[in-house]
Amino acid sequence: MPKPIKTSLLNFVEFPTYGDSRGQLSVAQIGSSLPFEIRRVYWVHGTKPGVSRGFHAHKKLNQICLCMVGNVRMHVFDGKNYDSVILKPEHGGLEIPPNLWHEMHDFSPDCVLAVFTDAEYDESDYIRDRQKFIQYVHTL
Amino acid sequence: MPKPIKTSLLNFVEFPTYGDSRGQLSVAQIGSSLPFEIRRVYWVHGTKPGVSRGFHAHKKLNQICLCMVGNVRMHVFDGKNYDSVILKPEHGGLEIPPNLWHEMHDFSPDCVLAVFTDAEYDESDYIRDRQKFIQYVHTL
Repeated sequence: MPKPIKTSLLNFVEFPTYGDSRGQLSVAQIGSSLPFEIRRVYWVHGTKPGVSRGFHAHKKLNQICLCMVGNVRMHVFDGKNYDSVILKPEHGGLEIPPNLWHEMHDFSPDCVLAVFTDAEYDESDYIRDRQKFIQYVHTL
Repeated sequence: MPKPIKTSLLNFVEFPTYGDSRGQLSVAQIGSSLPFEIRRVYWVHGTKPGVSRGFHAHKKLNQICLCMVGNVRMHVFDGKNYDSVILKPEHGGLEIPPNLWHEMHDFSPDCVLAVFTDAEYDESDYIRDRQKFIQYVHTL
């Protein structure tokens, strides 16, 4: 099998930020920057040095990741090509659609990574083995 | 009219936090800790020293506020009684139901205050005058 190559798998959703003399307010809203109603939000925080997370893909779940504070290196892989970005608040939301392997590395000590999803937790929706993921996406 | 008195208007929603050797992950999910699908999320950040925000109530909107980082003093008033809390991440989510005047004071410099709501922005849903708010809730 040929080696995976780097290509653009990174799609961002812009979250408008309204700044005035008081400070800043950012918004994710249905009908503009939010493509789905959120049924689950989770946020990763207090991540220890050297820790990586993720290492799975979903069959159906749609997710949008954003760094509220700090930064984290997001690595994505569609079974053939990969891409990565050091995600920061100014990027807005990174879309993680179904069938996209994702890993998070190099969390800054202050990082708060929030993830909006369109469905509740469902273990049967996860593919946690990278080889099985590659086989799975090649059957689609 | 008698002076407002301090009483409990503070209702919190618990967001489970799962900690392991990697760090922490907190969750708000429909069917457990999230009482509605989120149609709008906004987050207040970079608030300048000495700034207060809020100073309004909603007629219909349901909101849940949580400090992802830092702390802020939340002051609420139902037209008769008031209460306040220095909201911190460990409190989980503070419910701001309709017809509850709310103010945010004393943001810590690092504060990121996230707010989950059950509807899109609608200016006609706001009551921004405290006296009109008091009159309004007394007609309910």
